[in-house]
Amino acid sequence: MASEREWTAELAGFFATRRRDVVLGVGDDAAVVRPRSPELVLACDPVIEGVHFESEAPAAWVGRKAVNRNLSDLAAMGATPEYLLLSAVLPHGLPAVRRRRLFAGVRDAAEAASCAVVGGDVAATTGPMVLTITAVGRLEGRALRRDGARVGDTIHVTGPLGGSSLGHHLRFSPHLAEGRWLARQAAVTAAIDVSDGLLLDLQRLLDASGGWGADLSAAAVPVSKAAARLGRSSGRTALSHALGDGEDHVLLFTVRAGASLPRRGPLAGCARAPLGVVARHSGLRLHDDGGEVHEFEPRGFDHRL
Amino acid sequence: MASEREWTAELAGFFATRRRDVVLGVGDDAAVVRPRSPELVLACDPVIEGVHFESEAPAAWVGRKAVNRNLSDLAAMGATPEYLLLSAVLPHGLPAVRRRRLFAGVRDAAEAASCAVVGGDVAATTGPMVLTITAVGRLEGRALRRDGARVGDTIHVTGPLGGSSLGHHLRFSPHLAEGRWLARQAAVTAAIDVSDGLLLDLQRLLDASGGWGADLSAAAVPVSKAAARLGRSSGRTALSHALGDGEDHVLLFTVRAGASLPRRGPLAGCARAPLGVVARHSGLRLHDDGGEVHEFEPRGFDHRL
Repeated sequence: MASEREWTAELAGFFATRRRDVVLGVGDDAAVVRPRSPELVLACDPVIEGVHFESEAPAAWVGRKAVNRNLSDLAAMGATPEYLLLSAVLPHGLPAVRRRRLFAGVRDAAEAASCAVVGGDVAATTGPMVLTITAVGRLEGRALRRDGARVGDTIHVTGPLGGSSLGHHLRFSPHLAEGRWLARQAAVTAAIDVSDGLLLDLQRLLDASGGWGADLSAAAVPVSKAAARLGRSSGRTALSHALGDGEDHVLLFTVRAGASLPRRGPLAGCARAPLGVVARHSGLRLHDDGGEVHEFEPRGFDHRL
Repeated sequence: MASEREWTAELAGFFATRRRDVVLGVGDDAAVVRPRSPELVLACDPVIEGVHFESEAPAAWVGRKAVNRNLSDLAAMGATPEYLLLSAVLPHGLPAVRRRRLFAGVRDAAEAASCAVVGGDVAATTGPMVLTITAVGRLEGRALRRDGARVGDTIHVTGPLGGSSLGHHLRFSPHLAEGRWLARQAAVTAAIDVSDGLLLDLQRLLDASGGWGADLSAAAVPVSKAAARLGRSSGRTALSHALGDGEDHVLLFTVRAGASLPRRGPLAGCARAPLGVVARHSGLRLHDDGGEVHEFEPRGFDHRL
């Protein structure tokens, strides 16, 4: 019968690293690292079975998502990931092959972002699986904060939105290059990771920035193909999915009024055209093609308690 | 109806800090800190309802334990805690007062160790509560590792052992001053946090150090009053509780053969008298008062899967 101790020992082999800034990796009471920047960015979010993934989701994708969810938070700060810690709370009786696929997913996502898994713990639970990743990143310059948007700033996203439940929520790649690049542009005033839906996360950014509202143009919201596909079966419009679905994990950012971003860089085409403007009124107003204005209560993929 | 979003917003108020090395605390996509040492120590362990605490345990003590379990890992490295991140996965319908007491317990334990809670996330679960703390510490000199013990080194613990289930497992204070002090003593060769019982954690330290064994003296094992009390009801000896119970959270350390530690310092009296010696044979041998030798299979409070 396997024990937590053996599971934890397994981690040391799985996540061995030769990086010289990792003084001590998985296997001691704690890890020791020698970071390469004076300022560090720290994020820690869980993925929970039944909330962030279904029980039948491929284990490697679950491990990947646990990492990438946190890397997307680092991306929104303009940080570069360096070190990860994994706390895996696994259901009793989880098959060994599924456990190893989870760890492989964590390792793959870490390697894709050139970061090292330096700490790990495995414990057993009678409840749903909970994978918690802590991500530590470095900053090359300033941190992108969510509280710097001002009235008149234009509003942008780094990728199309909506329909994430069709699979993107497991398979997305964090927009790390975009975040780093945005942090270097002085005209960028604020940024946030879109985890709970465009409207909800935009409202958070506006609240943090001083309680502003926004005017959005329906025609300018970049709608994903998945949102269109989902719309055909859900009876809702693709736009409604783009505005309200969660787990897009693109970056939402604002640009100082009148400024523009350099043409060269990692941004997708859709990120250059603003989808709206920060406004002095409170609330979010969506202007459709016919000239009508819809006032929105912010909503999104908020797991009700 | 409360939502995760409101719970997470509550954290920002709960854990506000004025520390100047905390550039950005709870409330953005991630925290930004400016650590005061070039090397950092990172630990991340969960406490799980039904495994590490009973459902009826006072919530403030559960929050405290979640922190102190990780601070004890930092103590075993000789580190000083600086920053904490909290991921709280809470059962649906948890009363608000209990949630706030949990957070207050986290805050109290953080304050007791002069560290700041810089990140937090709250999510809901259908299963048992899982509180995961990430602790980030600084080092003043070397890190205490578990792999430095050699044959002939004497074996010590920083406090009495056993009977933790009577309450100590919730109420212990991490041996931070002891760990920092031990890291400054060149004669100290290895250290580990006693979380799963003396024999099991000693075996881990010996395995990491090259696969040695140990000779222990039964009379020299410091037995807690709780172990004696528990022994009267469990039908086992107090010594057996001291050897095998988990969650003592004292530090187990080794001292180079022939060396001794300075008299002044934070160590309890029991830490000066060795309870055994690292030996070339494999396995743990306990020598009792009558001259008999008991060979031990390492065992401890290992949550079976």
